[in-house]
Amino acid sequence: MSVSVYPVERLSEFAERVFASFGVDEAESVEAARILAQADLRGIDSHGIARLHAYSRMLDNGRINPKPDIQIVRETPGTATVDGDNGLGLVVGPFSNRLAMDKADEVGTGWVGVRGTNHFGIAGYYVLEALERDHLGWAMTNTTKIVAPLWGAERMLGTNPIAIAFPGLEEPPIVIDMASPAAAYGKIEMAMREEKDIPAGWAIDREGEPTTDPHGMAEGGAMLPLGSTREGGAHKGYCLGAMIDILSGVLPGANWGPFTPVFTTDFEEPPRRVGVGLGHMFGAMRIDAFIDTTEFKRQIDDWIRTFRAARPAPGTSGPLIPGDPERESEVVRRREGIPLVAAVVADLREVAAMTGVAFD
Amino acid sequence: MSVSVYPVERLSEFAERVFASFGVDEAESVEAARILAQADLRGIDSHGIARLHAYSRMLDNGRINPKPDIQIVRETPGTATVDGDNGLGLVVGPFSNRLAMDKADEVGTGWVGVRGTNHFGIAGYYVLEALERDHLGWAMTNTTKIVAPLWGAERMLGTNPIAIAFPGLEEPPIVIDMASPAAAYGKIEMAMREEKDIPAGWAIDREGEPTTDPHGMAEGGAMLPLGSTREGGAHKGYCLGAMIDILSGVLPGANWGPFTPVFTTDFEEPPRRVGVGLGHMFGAMRIDAFIDTTEFKRQIDDWIRTFRAARPAPGTSGPLIPGDPERESEVVRRREGIPLVAAVVADLREVAAMTGVAFD
Repeated sequence: MSVSVYPVERLSEFAERVFASFGVDEAESVEAARILAQADLRGIDSHGIARLHAYSRMLDNGRINPKPDIQIVRETPGTATVDGDNGLGLVVGPFSNRLAMDKADEVGTGWVGVRGTNHFGIAGYYVLEALERDHLGWAMTNTTKIVAPLWGAERMLGTNPIAIAFPGLEEPPIVIDMASPAAAYGKIEMAMREEKDIPAGWAIDREGEPTTDPHGMAEGGAMLPLGSTREGGAHKGYCLGAMIDILSGVLPGANWGPFTPVFTTDFEEPPRRVGVGLGHMFGAMRIDAFIDTTEFKRQIDDWIRTFRAARPAPGTSGPLIPGDPERESEVVRRREGIPLVAAVVADLREVAAMTGVAFD
Repeated sequence: MSVSVYPVERLSEFAERVFASFGVDEAESVEAARILAQADLRGIDSHGIARLHAYSRMLDNGRINPKPDIQIVRETPGTATVDGDNGLGLVVGPFSNRLAMDKADEVGTGWVGVRGTNHFGIAGYYVLEALERDHLGWAMTNTTKIVAPLWGAERMLGTNPIAIAFPGLEEPPIVIDMASPAAAYGKIEMAMREEKDIPAGWAIDREGEPTTDPHGMAEGGAMLPLGSTREGGAHKGYCLGAMIDILSGVLPGANWGPFTPVFTTDFEEPPRRVGVGLGHMFGAMRIDAFIDTTEFKRQIDDWIRTFRAARPAPGTSGPLIPGDPERESEVVRRREGIPLVAAVVADLREVAAMTGVAFD
């Protein structure tokens, strides 16, 4: 597979100018581009510059509003519901996350539900922002249906990620950012490209039967919840996906479950509308509302060192700390650049043609 | 296996009198007994009256304080940290959960971390209480180490449950109450009693090798996180367990990870102390802080009906709604009574002998 490498700054600048070309506010374009760049740096290729093509198409055909009038539609000292006016998730998300943190500054914790929004990039971005303010940040979103509930034979839930981060004093932070199914859909796509089988436990086919054929999943099948089978605990993975769907979707008045809007034109539109757009939920907890901040960070250092020192399972080098792989990726990619496969480069050239922003 | 059946009221009254006999306040004894009864009614046998023996031994030998001076040690309008003064979790938990709800009544949401506490019963109890006030309740706790992190060969985390519930209007509530590993330790005990193998993916032995022998797990092995293997997503199950451990343990200043106190004398004491007692975290969100309460409940009805109507996987009758099995158990057990195995009945007779409270 042909791969080209680009400095992150160059991709970031391109994305900024692309967003601005659609009329997105300048500061908002900068932050939106930064969210994509952070995904690429952290090795989450599916959520980085590779998504610019989809955002651009949706801005181009009017399915995303470049100049949303974001409204707080309900509010208490510790909570709010935001209507994103169908803006970019990369704009509505940061606004709502900051609102949650502002509320935490006031009353110790803040929780903000969001409707009328779109795909918000990596959930991890928001919780890393919270660390800058010595908050524990939470971020969740619902997404287009692709996962079956346990004992269901069709797509009913999205990959519904949840993120939360905990800062150390001398150690780097623990950063949890995970989707709720057994595996990511991107791994199905990769197996199809490479004409390989997928492991048992990832997916079912259109009849609802377990399959190891990635095409069997892609053509009307579904991903399985974390746990894969009843015996493996898939009822828990289903619960996790449902919890995130209800908090992000139902509570702020967004669409939910199988009615969550599609992000690209590659999937069919939901059969009915039960709310407004996509949904997110952001939480913020001021550390010093619970405990001395430095004491907390010292304990996190101790936690990290204790878990790193756990006896390794045979054939492994021992437990990782959540966030380790992404941080290691960031070190390498800041130095060496972001590798893009040919299909993504072709997409970016198409974005350049669509917007008149140079990409070379 | 010999099983005797008791009306729930009789077990509940016995537990009340047992707690009171140790000097626990009368109203607190009533609520503590109610939490155990709810576990039995909901079919979570491991957390019901079967635990009374362990609570009694710990009260008897002074390891739990029957008359705790529960203190709020840090507080903001939306948050608090509670020190339970080593009281019963069944007393400190309800106090702290109510505090979270009181804060939600004031500022929309309330989050209360707890240290210096003990085993709090089923997490589901607390979130069902929240429904009475039209709140979304969250409950988490850390517990004695029994689960290995992915790529670790030893016990580092507890089964660390999380619960949350969502009310319907005409439909019964969605009640999520789940431990974070692939399977419950109770299932290992059952397999040992029945001399049966356990499924692959539940456990490792003392060398850190995957095992299907329940004795291999029990004798120095560990349970595996939800997902079971790296391929199956066990890094996510590990993240979930870690998140609950840090929120319940580190944030309120309790012990965490492998240092979480043991609940019974069947396990060895942790090697060092890093905080005060066990930890919990309770959250409450007023529904009407985000959306009209009736509208929310209508949407939950729609969610439930939509998921019930999903096409069933072959050989199943279709997806369940979280909370279905427990609710069905409650209907049967209220009518027919609580079945107790002979070992539990023998334990209760021992409690009767220890306290002088009649059990027959």
